[in-house]
Amino acid sequence: MSQNIKGYAAHSPTGRLDLFRFDRRSPRANDVVIDILYCGVCHSDLHNVRNDWGNAQYPMVPGHEIIGRVLEVGAQVTRFKAGDRVGVGCMVDSCQHCRSCGKGWEQYCENGATYTYNGTDPVDGSRTHGGYSERVVVKQDFVLKVPDSLDLAAAAPLLCAGITTYSPLRHWQVGPGSRVAVVGLGGLGHMGLKLAKAMGAEVTLFSRSPGKEADARRLGADRIVISTDPAQMAAVSGRFDLIIDTVPYLHDVNPYVPTLAAGGTLVMVGYLGPLEDFNTGTLVFGRKALAGSLIGGIAETQEMLDFCGQHGIGSDIEIIRIQDINAAYERLLKADVKYRFVIDMASLKEEGAA
Amino acid sequence: MSQNIKGYAAHSPTGRLDLFRFDRRSPRANDVVIDILYCGVCHSDLHNVRNDWGNAQYPMVPGHEIIGRVLEVGAQVTRFKAGDRVGVGCMVDSCQHCRSCGKGWEQYCENGATYTYNGTDPVDGSRTHGGYSERVVVKQDFVLKVPDSLDLAAAAPLLCAGITTYSPLRHWQVGPGSRVAVVGLGGLGHMGLKLAKAMGAEVTLFSRSPGKEADARRLGADRIVISTDPAQMAAVSGRFDLIIDTVPYLHDVNPYVPTLAAGGTLVMVGYLGPLEDFNTGTLVFGRKALAGSLIGGIAETQEMLDFCGQHGIGSDIEIIRIQDINAAYERLLKADVKYRFVIDMASLKEEGAA
Repeated sequence: MSQNIKGYAAHSPTGRLDLFRFDRRSPRANDVVIDILYCGVCHSDLHNVRNDWGNAQYPMVPGHEIIGRVLEVGAQVTRFKAGDRVGVGCMVDSCQHCRSCGKGWEQYCENGATYTYNGTDPVDGSRTHGGYSERVVVKQDFVLKVPDSLDLAAAAPLLCAGITTYSPLRHWQVGPGSRVAVVGLGGLGHMGLKLAKAMGAEVTLFSRSPGKEADARRLGADRIVISTDPAQMAAVSGRFDLIIDTVPYLHDVNPYVPTLAAGGTLVMVGYLGPLEDFNTGTLVFGRKALAGSLIGGIAETQEMLDFCGQHGIGSDIEIIRIQDINAAYERLLKADVKYRFVIDMASLKEEGAA
Repeated sequence: MSQNIKGYAAHSPTGRLDLFRFDRRSPRANDVVIDILYCGVCHSDLHNVRNDWGNAQYPMVPGHEIIGRVLEVGAQVTRFKAGDRVGVGCMVDSCQHCRSCGKGWEQYCENGATYTYNGTDPVDGSRTHGGYSERVVVKQDFVLKVPDSLDLAAAAPLLCAGITTYSPLRHWQVGPGSRVAVVGLGGLGHMGLKLAKAMGAEVTLFSRSPGKEADARRLGADRIVISTDPAQMAAVSGRFDLIIDTVPYLHDVNPYVPTLAAGGTLVMVGYLGPLEDFNTGTLVFGRKALAGSLIGGIAETQEMLDFCGQHGIGSDIEIIRIQDINAAYERLLKADVKYRFVIDMASLKEEGAA
């Protein structure tokens, strides 16, 4: 039985979202049907609906920071039952047998992970649709448990912004004594500060403008370095074990490399594209690395949610109604949000009868 | 007592070397005086004498792949005695108390390692001079033991070309089951093939020309991939855990990144300088890294020499006389050497009376 439901979809690269009715596939034996309560608004939603990456298919229902309650489960589902608080992030499937999947790196699946929206279901070939909708149907292996201690709305952005910063912090073994810096204070950056601080690291924010000091300190930064000030940059030369660069557009990363300690890594999690004149000399003199990182694996995402539950970490959010999504996108373009929009999906019920 | 000795020095950026007499500093209590038997000719010798890196001071006696015998030792020297077979690489001192030195990464000393030549002795401020000479005086902590099983001449290039490829192989934990590729078949590249093979890895050579197949296989390569052939490149997509790029000039590294497996690293050991249009997107989709690496620490260099002793690994060399050094530099510029020139320092004795 397919399920005719409501959502908000883009129908062209103009990026405008409107009410859209579509059929969810019927749950298979291993699937969980989730009633969506909240969905975070990620900058990549905007990239996707505007076809910035050239792979958009319309209609497209965005949303990959999904929080909800289990409505029903397939016959083979053992890990969930109706009423459970659950989350779904950027992936709903992967091959589960390649080298990457075997390591728990489903996000790097050699056969291609199935994205939560703008993807293709590997079983029946249908298009996947995301969390700006009433319900989602997901294989149980890709459903996360949300700890009781977490606020459901504030937990939504953990599924992308949270895991995107948590995964490199864990991979590069950040802990007490580590020196971590975050470049950029947005949805990802503010989670980076909170998570690095909770892991016991000394935390620095690189910012281009001085106005963010108070907020950065509240979020966990021990210090703010104005990246356009050569004296401040020189003062942190050779300091950081890990720099997480969350800036989502082309920028010069060369000035950050000398602030890495020997053996340190600058990991890009925001910008995907060519860098101009990146200098390898600064890498060689210190065995430094420029790396990239994409969200995190499923087990790691569960670990992140549990970590956030233990440390009382949620995202700083502004709750909006689905009817406000187009205005929210405009504000997102101006970085006018502290620090993540989350859609209260109850607002979708106002839109006609289901 | 200083020691007036002979060497070959450059006196200007023309790069021409001539006989040069100079005073070696007297050995201090912790120093070893080494009678130089062989000295390898590294491409960086050429860069240094021609002032390619802008920091040359003349006269300059190059040479940092030094093999010799201990002539005498200072009063506090415990690790060496007269007659011992020893080596000296690119460093003769470091602060020995910073975070890097504490980790055994003297090459990344936060206070600056003292290079074997074109450097400044931290105790008396004198200029350091390298291995194209009769004798060298080195603090015992920076002197290496050469295993009895190694041919002395073939061991010389291990002190730079050997450790430069060994260090990243060890740091990125190459062993049985690892898939390693080497870009470029020169002094560094041929050592990379030998060492990776001896560590049990599957070894691939990336080459721009097909003529190197037989030599590459003899040196340890299981396969050769012609990097200008898109079909051959596509066939190794996602394959390598580690790529060691030994090419010493500007080149496009973007095509190699997709051949890394998820979590893989491309480490630059040859080229120091800006890259044009390096694409970070390929790093993000696979948590890949572009890294740099510089020689290796002292304990690691000793480990490398011991490893080479156990596995019977030396460099493939062409022995020359010091009188032929200028012609050798010309051939080095044309990559006309398989795969390292080593100077037999006995030839220096022909040059007048000491």
